[in-house]
Amino acid sequence: MPQKPSIPKGTRDFSPTEVAKRNYIIQTIKKQFEVYGFQPIETPSFENYDTLMGKYGDEGDRLIFKILNSGDFISKVDDVTYSSKNSSSLTPKISDKALRYDLTVPFARYVVMHQNELDFPFKRYQVQPVWRADRPQKGRFREFYQCDADVVGAKSLLQEVEFVQLYDAVFEDLGLKGTTIKINNRKVLSGIAEVIGAKNLLVDFTVALDKLDKIGEEGVKQEMLAKGISETAIEKAAPLFQMTGSNHDQLEQLKSLLVQSEIGMAGVAELEEIVTHIEELGLQSAKLALDVTLARGLNYYTGAIYEVAAPEGVKMGSIGGGGRYDDLTGIFGLKDMSGVGISFGLDRIYLVLEELGLFPESLGRSLDVLCINFGKEESLAALQLVGKLRSAGLKAEVYPSSSKMQKQMKYANSRNVPYVILIGKQELDAGTFVVKNMENGEQQSYALNNPGEFIQQL
Amino acid sequence: MPQKPSIPKGTRDFSPTEVAKRNYIIQTIKKQFEVYGFQPIETPSFENYDTLMGKYGDEGDRLIFKILNSGDFISKVDDVTYSSKNSSSLTPKISDKALRYDLTVPFARYVVMHQNELDFPFKRYQVQPVWRADRPQKGRFREFYQCDADVVGAKSLLQEVEFVQLYDAVFEDLGLKGTTIKINNRKVLSGIAEVIGAKNLLVDFTVALDKLDKIGEEGVKQEMLAKGISETAIEKAAPLFQMTGSNHDQLEQLKSLLVQSEIGMAGVAELEEIVTHIEELGLQSAKLALDVTLARGLNYYTGAIYEVAAPEGVKMGSIGGGGRYDDLTGIFGLKDMSGVGISFGLDRIYLVLEELGLFPESLGRSLDVLCINFGKEESLAALQLVGKLRSAGLKAEVYPSSSKMQKQMKYANSRNVPYVILIGKQELDAGTFVVKNMENGEQQSYALNNPGEFIQQL
Repeated sequence: MPQKPSIPKGTRDFSPTEVAKRNYIIQTIKKQFEVYGFQPIETPSFENYDTLMGKYGDEGDRLIFKILNSGDFISKVDDVTYSSKNSSSLTPKISDKALRYDLTVPFARYVVMHQNELDFPFKRYQVQPVWRADRPQKGRFREFYQCDADVVGAKSLLQEVEFVQLYDAVFEDLGLKGTTIKINNRKVLSGIAEVIGAKNLLVDFTVALDKLDKIGEEGVKQEMLAKGISETAIEKAAPLFQMTGSNHDQLEQLKSLLVQSEIGMAGVAELEEIVTHIEELGLQSAKLALDVTLARGLNYYTGAIYEVAAPEGVKMGSIGGGGRYDDLTGIFGLKDMSGVGISFGLDRIYLVLEELGLFPESLGRSLDVLCINFGKEESLAALQLVGKLRSAGLKAEVYPSSSKMQKQMKYANSRNVPYVILIGKQELDAGTFVVKNMENGEQQSYALNNPGEFIQQL
Repeated sequence: MPQKPSIPKGTRDFSPTEVAKRNYIIQTIKKQFEVYGFQPIETPSFENYDTLMGKYGDEGDRLIFKILNSGDFISKVDDVTYSSKNSSSLTPKISDKALRYDLTVPFARYVVMHQNELDFPFKRYQVQPVWRADRPQKGRFREFYQCDADVVGAKSLLQEVEFVQLYDAVFEDLGLKGTTIKINNRKVLSGIAEVIGAKNLLVDFTVALDKLDKIGEEGVKQEMLAKGISETAIEKAAPLFQMTGSNHDQLEQLKSLLVQSEIGMAGVAELEEIVTHIEELGLQSAKLALDVTLARGLNYYTGAIYEVAAPEGVKMGSIGGGGRYDDLTGIFGLKDMSGVGISFGLDRIYLVLEELGLFPESLGRSLDVLCINFGKEESLAALQLVGKLRSAGLKAEVYPSSSKMQKQMKYANSRNVPYVILIGKQELDAGTFVVKNMENGEQQSYALNNPGEFIQQL
């Protein structure tokens, strides 16, 4: 009884069309990464257990896929641990490797390990899959790609400015107009927590604020209360929910709110510099919008925070995000390395382009020319012709066997091929080949010894 | 005490230059795959445990990386199994997923799962990493890429012919001239085993023959003897080791040896058709050479077998291989699907190109233009200029801070940048920028509002 095949939940097979569409997005992103001076690196799919564990919080530790040690792994477990029959204490004894959970920790590890070979500022990009043992659901997978660009070793705000431009450039190239690049600054959030008297509850404050989109203003306030932030403090923070006007208007409102907070005012000054620079440089089709309620979950951000929203009318979570983190590599022993980076959400961008019909039609074309196979002698001529078409860069093939015409034409249709070439006995004798245009049905004859005439017409 | 970072043995970090070189090879292969009409698919990095286990022999089972189940995996192990403390019986209870070991079994699984969406013959290519818990050694890694192209659902020998052309096209594009595409046929090997009277020892016979390169003729004969193949039989097989002359000469010698074996003669006929077709079509720089001692380890081949040798003088194992297997998908319940395919050995091709100095010099260029940063006002002009260069597709950046000139020039050198642009106070006032050619030191001035003049010169 043969196995009925399936794949693990949360994973995906990608068909030729899906691969073509995904590669279109990835290549567009990579092209702009390179145009902006970023260099690619790649890190192994699995890292040492200790490299990953403890870097993403308890929840992260739980979601990291661990790889079972090879060989007689159980014999290396001491009897006390074994007899406890406890998964948590057993895991580190039978697993010393784990699958990459994101690209940031491996990047930090890379920078520290290769610090003597690198020239700082080091601008790297990385497009590789990551794995998370999350509960699979619509749009959430256990294997997915991350597309990250980061700079380490440069504190200048020009980096922040460039990342806004980079987002704009990629979405412009993808034809995705009308995205909003939301920007905030962790220092502003710290400043707010400070002036409202909730400095020691900064994490709870930002975690609650981060949920504004999902649970609304009242929900956020309730969560803050529940976390022990006083009503007075929440009252003081109220202006945050009513900020209006241009980016500069909002910056002015922030300034009056934060005038007592040194760190808050530093954040405002950073935002102001970025906003002003982008005004001077201009964007192609994206909009830069200050959003003081933008918090993002990750605690390691220390300066700018980004998040990109799809064009209005498209229901979709953020399609990109990032920010600055002042101590990227400290955990691996290299201090004072400021980093800033952004990420593109491949799967979500895919869904947005699909919804808006923005994928180029040519992506569905995996074959330009199919030569019908009329038998041994004819197929040799067909192979010779196809060789010339291929040299010219055309995707071309000869149907492998002289099956019935109907079967060969069915294959041509299923491959969505625009041109079918016919070389039967008659054509062979006349030294010609016939090209059938599959869109309009027209046929035209060319000389076998001069395929250039046909190639030029394409 | 921070962790001193390292990576698991047998894995690798790839630097920007290494990624560029690897991508150059991969893109060259992919381009020809597509020109030959193959379509890309991708499968998940891990498959169900049962999909992979039992497909690669006992040794393969041992070398497959298993992924530990998430959550409280131990609580699901029954007490009897647990108390045995036996790794082999415990493994399937605590692991239901495993990392891809090659691309062929996942491809077979894909074809069976998606058979109703596919049009046959289905020509797919796949370039993805695979993982093996092998003992790492020089040139052998635990994570490495496979680059495979296969056709399923077509029995025509035209496929075999096309794969020879495809090898030739890729190596020609890589500038790697003088490769030898060795070809043999499993039916010929079966025929030989038959006529020498060792039909029931075919596997031992081919396994021994496969080692000819490593252990020589005498070694092969010793191994055959040890496996129970008689001296008489080995004597009869002696002509195999002395085949000389052109492909056609050798085919004639084979015919006399195999005249009594139906299967052997069928294999000879197939080889003859392929060899003749390739003569008629011609190759660009590779040579097709019949090699009757070519056996390849994999037992699933049933027809043609390929192996590609690097140009003479380069010490390197095979840089590609493949063949036909008549029952690719039977194990997953889909019968009568003949497949034929080839693989490119990325890591070895990399080493060969490196040894022969065949990587294009431009691959080392990750930045075309660096703009020196002279301060706030100047850098704004620099950013504006760089924006225009980027729109023209140039890889360009502004140094992030107005550090000392020496530091900025050191960075320019380390990035191997051919042009440095200077916009100081003087240039800004004059509305110009200065381009320094880093190769010859020459400087030239251009108008800031007309960067096209500079771009055109590149």
